[in-house]
Amino acid sequence: MSAPRMTMKPLMSLDDALAELLGAAVTLEGVESISTFEADGRVLAQDLVAALQVPPEDNSSMDGYAVRCTDVAQALRESLSGVAELALSQRIAAGSSGAPLAPASVARIFTGAPIPLGADAVVMQEDCEVLTSETASTRVRIKAVPEPGQWLRRAGEDIRQGARVLAKGERLAPAELGLAASIGMDFLPVARRPRVALFSTGDELVMPGAVPPEQMKPGAIYNSNRFFLRALLLRLGCAVSDLGIVPDRLDASVQALRAAAQNHDLILTSGGVSVGEEDHIKPAVQSLGSLDLWQIAIKPGKPFAYGRVQSAHFIGLPGNPVSSFVTFLLLVRPFLLKLQGATQVTMKSSAASAHFTWAKVDKRREFLRVRRNGAGGLDLFPNQSSAVLTSAVWADGLVDNPPGRTIAVGDVVRFIPFSELLA
Amino acid sequence: MSAPRMTMKPLMSLDDALAELLGAAVTLEGVESISTFEADGRVLAQDLVAALQVPPEDNSSMDGYAVRCTDVAQALRESLSGVAELALSQRIAAGSSGAPLAPASVARIFTGAPIPLGADAVVMQEDCEVLTSETASTRVRIKAVPEPGQWLRRAGEDIRQGARVLAKGERLAPAELGLAASIGMDFLPVARRPRVALFSTGDELVMPGAVPPEQMKPGAIYNSNRFFLRALLLRLGCAVSDLGIVPDRLDASVQALRAAAQNHDLILTSGGVSVGEEDHIKPAVQSLGSLDLWQIAIKPGKPFAYGRVQSAHFIGLPGNPVSSFVTFLLLVRPFLLKLQGATQVTMKSSAASAHFTWAKVDKRREFLRVRRNGAGGLDLFPNQSSAVLTSAVWADGLVDNPPGRTIAVGDVVRFIPFSELLA
Repeated sequence: MSAPRMTMKPLMSLDDALAELLGAAVTLEGVESISTFEADGRVLAQDLVAALQVPPEDNSSMDGYAVRCTDVAQALRESLSGVAELALSQRIAAGSSGAPLAPASVARIFTGAPIPLGADAVVMQEDCEVLTSETASTRVRIKAVPEPGQWLRRAGEDIRQGARVLAKGERLAPAELGLAASIGMDFLPVARRPRVALFSTGDELVMPGAVPPEQMKPGAIYNSNRFFLRALLLRLGCAVSDLGIVPDRLDASVQALRAAAQNHDLILTSGGVSVGEEDHIKPAVQSLGSLDLWQIAIKPGKPFAYGRVQSAHFIGLPGNPVSSFVTFLLLVRPFLLKLQGATQVTMKSSAASAHFTWAKVDKRREFLRVRRNGAGGLDLFPNQSSAVLTSAVWADGLVDNPPGRTIAVGDVVRFIPFSELLA
Repeated sequence: MSAPRMTMKPLMSLDDALAELLGAAVTLEGVESISTFEADGRVLAQDLVAALQVPPEDNSSMDGYAVRCTDVAQALRESLSGVAELALSQRIAAGSSGAPLAPASVARIFTGAPIPLGADAVVMQEDCEVLTSETASTRVRIKAVPEPGQWLRRAGEDIRQGARVLAKGERLAPAELGLAASIGMDFLPVARRPRVALFSTGDELVMPGAVPPEQMKPGAIYNSNRFFLRALLLRLGCAVSDLGIVPDRLDASVQALRAAAQNHDLILTSGGVSVGEEDHIKPAVQSLGSLDLWQIAIKPGKPFAYGRVQSAHFIGLPGNPVSSFVTFLLLVRPFLLKLQGATQVTMKSSAASAHFTWAKVDKRREFLRVRRNGAGGLDLFPNQSSAVLTSAVWADGLVDNPPGRTIAVGDVVRFIPFSELLA
């Protein structure tokens, strides 16, 4: 059976599939200005340039006393006790700016407070002793000889005025929000949220809560993919419309797709994209746009569909939960980050030591569910079936194993922690 | 100066500080039942036990044909062409349960569909050929000899009925939600959100947006800590009340603390907890409860305050942004997870190779801001000052460096990726 607007591609590598998908992920138009408080996880749409320097002026990096080093040296020469002693002339709290430092005096100063004009060092309070008497004004003994510049943070040392502190395309995390706030940004320009319509197909699917476990009919299974797919989409900053389980009829599928395409950037579904599977999503997508069925040489996760429904992207994930989960992380996640203009879209892997054997070679690149153990190595989940999520729950990452490679205990393998993929 | 209900502790190790803090973090009472769709990031309050087995019955793990192996062997013996040929007696889609397999026939079957009674293997469709003729019923050529059990997933193979699929104290992530859904759970029992009151103190602080950069007074700086602290709290499942910048007066501080203690589990602030700093938070906390000032032997992040304000916990973080950020990740994060009853509260580190030198030994345990490079090693951010978040933005993790240890290029160090700490 051949259809006019559906192509079946030969087995393709993950890298080729990713390149093709990223090529299709043209960055969404539209910049949103949102409160810096609400920008966690979003992608910056413009460079952020500092309109001021940080710190704004020379300031103290310690609680102590601001001094003029030559005054301390002079006082030391004049001292009989061998310890410099100077008058306390002022107190500068953080947030206040002091007067110029009077000759032969010191100023009490706190971390972050501006250095008074004329001072060139700070002596930390542990090296000072405050002398008070009823008759005289307060004096301070300076027990350590300061060096010019000591315990000073220089104006602009951390951020120069005009410097780019965050680049367009960076994904904002808590520290980024703090940095943006530190240069006075209360609103940030970010890419708008991708609008994603999510649904499932399959007459065997039952929603949890709709039928209790003891009343499930033979062949019926609970829909689980939509639960993790929705959570993954939300973590990536998407606005998710949950279209539920679409009935497996051509008219219902066409109607659901056409409606979803009106106001979504991506229509995401799972199931129904294997070669042999019979459902109505494939012809429905073709009738409204185009569809490519990909066979990607990875395990889990071989079948994958990419297409267009009018102006919306369409992605069909495999129906097996682990295949759907892994394929999302490897392909849909970078796609959605690219839609938002993120510059870093792929995950980082690191070298780790296998504490397991893997004798079953596969001609596909495999992503094995593993967990770091206390001995600095990786353990393998015994059941690598793609049918249940138990392996993905037990594991804390994936081993990226090249085609045809067996693994022996102690071998160095590529490890991708889930923490990198779930952020 | 000594106060009745404030203690000053000697320099303590991070491990001791963490142990003391976790000891104080008694798990919050109250279990909430929330939609599985909304449970990402929350902590499970009860074990989840499967009320059904997964898969519910023996089913196919391939698209193909369900067969009785002895029938195929028999047909092969009778065949003139050397290929077994059997009648197609039924078609079993996923979600439907077929009739018992008629003698000497095969059943069309799809991934996930129940195996008909009498069948004992599946032959994948790539190894079959469908013969149709106008006069006869459809027949299927079976080109590979099946083994009993082939391409079958056995009932209960993935989850046994009565098995604990998720344990109390597990933090829920997308895969966990999918697994819970797969056993029919539409609502999950989770620990209630910790209610956290967040505020800043310091007369030098200005809110971004309140004053434009060019009009900032000398000594004034933008408040940045509250931006990243709020985002970190939200990522940990907390309900955050932002109390803003509390005026640095005793009456205002007492009033703010007393109000916050009424309906919060934790009052979190930054700044004002150094030994030499003069502000009104310390006496205000003492007047309403108790306060311990800790000097923790870590860098950045030495000063730390833990106390109680009536029934609420009080934590005071250092005011320097990087100190505040790092201290939150190392101490407050585990504290908040423990409050929710999470069993895994500390971060995982791994061995990595330093591609930098660190000659400046410190008697404190240091957390250096580093970034993984393309060559599998770690680069160091040149400015390790605790004053600006630039290092935490540039970096993608911390090196946990023991006291007094220098680092040479190629040394193996302990690396903690931020992705582990920010989830």
